[in-house]
Amino acid sequence: MKIALIGGSGHYRYALDALSEQNLVGIAPGVPGEDLTKLKKALASRGIAAREYADPRALLPLADVAVVNTRFDKNAEISIEYLNENKFVFSEKPLATAREDLEKLETANAASRAFVAGMFGIRFSPWFRTVQKHLGEIGDLRLVTAQKSYKLGERPGFYRRRETFGGTIPWVAIHAVDWIQTLLKGDPLSVVSALHRADGEGPEICAEMLMRSASGVLAAVTADYLRPAGAPTHGDDRIRVVGTKGVLEAVGGVVTLTDENGETTLPPEPGEDVFRLFLRRCGGEEIGVTPEESFLATRLALTARDLADGGAK
Amino acid sequence: MKIALIGGSGHYRYALDALSEQNLVGIAPGVPGEDLTKLKKALASRGIAAREYADPRALLPLADVAVVNTRFDKNAEISIEYLNENKFVFSEKPLATAREDLEKLETANAASRAFVAGMFGIRFSPWFRTVQKHLGEIGDLRLVTAQKSYKLGERPGFYRRRETFGGTIPWVAIHAVDWIQTLLKGDPLSVVSALHRADGEGPEICAEMLMRSASGVLAAVTADYLRPAGAPTHGDDRIRVVGTKGVLEAVGGVVTLTDENGETTLPPEPGEDVFRLFLRRCGGEEIGVTPEESFLATRLALTARDLADGGAK
Repeated sequence: MKIALIGGSGHYRYALDALSEQNLVGIAPGVPGEDLTKLKKALASRGIAAREYADPRALLPLADVAVVNTRFDKNAEISIEYLNENKFVFSEKPLATAREDLEKLETANAASRAFVAGMFGIRFSPWFRTVQKHLGEIGDLRLVTAQKSYKLGERPGFYRRRETFGGTIPWVAIHAVDWIQTLLKGDPLSVVSALHRADGEGPEICAEMLMRSASGVLAAVTADYLRPAGAPTHGDDRIRVVGTKGVLEAVGGVVTLTDENGETTLPPEPGEDVFRLFLRRCGGEEIGVTPEESFLATRLALTARDLADGGAK
Repeated sequence: MKIALIGGSGHYRYALDALSEQNLVGIAPGVPGEDLTKLKKALASRGIAAREYADPRALLPLADVAVVNTRFDKNAEISIEYLNENKFVFSEKPLATAREDLEKLETANAASRAFVAGMFGIRFSPWFRTVQKHLGEIGDLRLVTAQKSYKLGERPGFYRRRETFGGTIPWVAIHAVDWIQTLLKGDPLSVVSALHRADGEGPEICAEMLMRSASGVLAAVTADYLRPAGAPTHGDDRIRVVGTKGVLEAVGGVVTLTDENGETTLPPEPGEDVFRLFLRRCGGEEIGVTPEESFLATRLALTARDLADGGAK
């Protein structure tokens, strides 16, 4: 598989471990002037001297797979170009920042002999795999709450405009949506309401969503950029999964099961590499990195953002 | 102050420390057949031989203060009878289980020379007082999430009927509403949406609420009866208070401040006795146990319950 790396504004890091000078055909900015400094540094530190192109289209004939992570509003457009040429796309999430772009992407995906899947890598982290492994021990699912909290730090300028950033719900809360979707195993989730708050320029500083599944599981998500600079880690991801026979909770990467026997810290499961799974799926293995789940999470996040726009102005 | 204790179905325990054979004029069931066994045992263990009346009205001429905690739907009716006679009422929360009863109670309270206040005692616990004390250190408030989680255990039969129980939001989540209201210091909170789920008989097994204040603070609350029997404590109360300069969090009674200096466990503040504060307010001191805050929390909880009824059937 020949891989093209387009843009350096998202989570290209997911792909790094699988890259080599043999399979990386080149890199290109997704929009003119995109800053690829960090990406090039990361490649160089792995001994990979990547050929750089000015136009992402130049890589199209050379690659079997595109890793797309450019200015967020451009991801869908570039993904569509690759899908139209039957190239696989590993895309930054959300797969699109506007509903009409998402629809076009779904159409292109359906017509392509290849497919697109999103960078929902946290789902393959040890703590989430541990929660998943023990899900059967807590009876029937009733309530899931999840938290995303990040330090704001310095963000690229395009985070300041909704049109180029997309919003904190599609960019951050979407991971929690993906986790909950995964735990629900096909029980369709819908968003009931959502709120967000902007503080001047920059991404919305916090957001929350209320969801319900078709079978009646309740879910709530909060996302914020208010993790203090002095906190020991960049992110504070959490999930609490409440069933009829027990509660699973992940905080700081540590998973606890509470049930009739008390509280137990669970041994961590090994994590998985989402990009390697994606590549295996490109090769035909049905291993669950699907376009459908990425579309679902994106659609839910965009719906929530639009509800929040209407509800919290 | 002469005190009457009506009913034994709620949190009469808040009043126990202030009771004696001198000030307790008697006890009575709020509804015929109400089980007062535990109440009588608690009084006996403190050496108080209480005189028992069959009718709560019989205590009306004898008391200055009524502690009302009977079948939840009856609390408002009895409170009104006492307020009409200018007697102070320390009432179980919610102050009423139906909106029309709440309105009648507010009218009676406004016309009375006495007042009613609710049993919002958790707000005076050491952990909540600690959060309150350090609130000024986290900058401007942006997001508050709160959790109530209880073991279901054995519940009286009237928990099985909405008409007599009122609902898990007014009975349980209301505390979290009270906490958030208190932290918001008069910034009015409104409920945007709410969901709950019932599993056969008994109280709704879980619920969630999304709220927003007039100034734009976001808040989310979950409440559930799914804490496993094997958990080390009955309840799992939590709050996370996120500001522009730091995060305060209380879990298991321990309060942590995260700010630019890192994470710090805060020394606990002393708790206060909500009933003694109530009695001081009956004596004329303005110490913040007000009817208005109890009415606000009750109204918000009833609104949320009704939204959840409409949204989660």
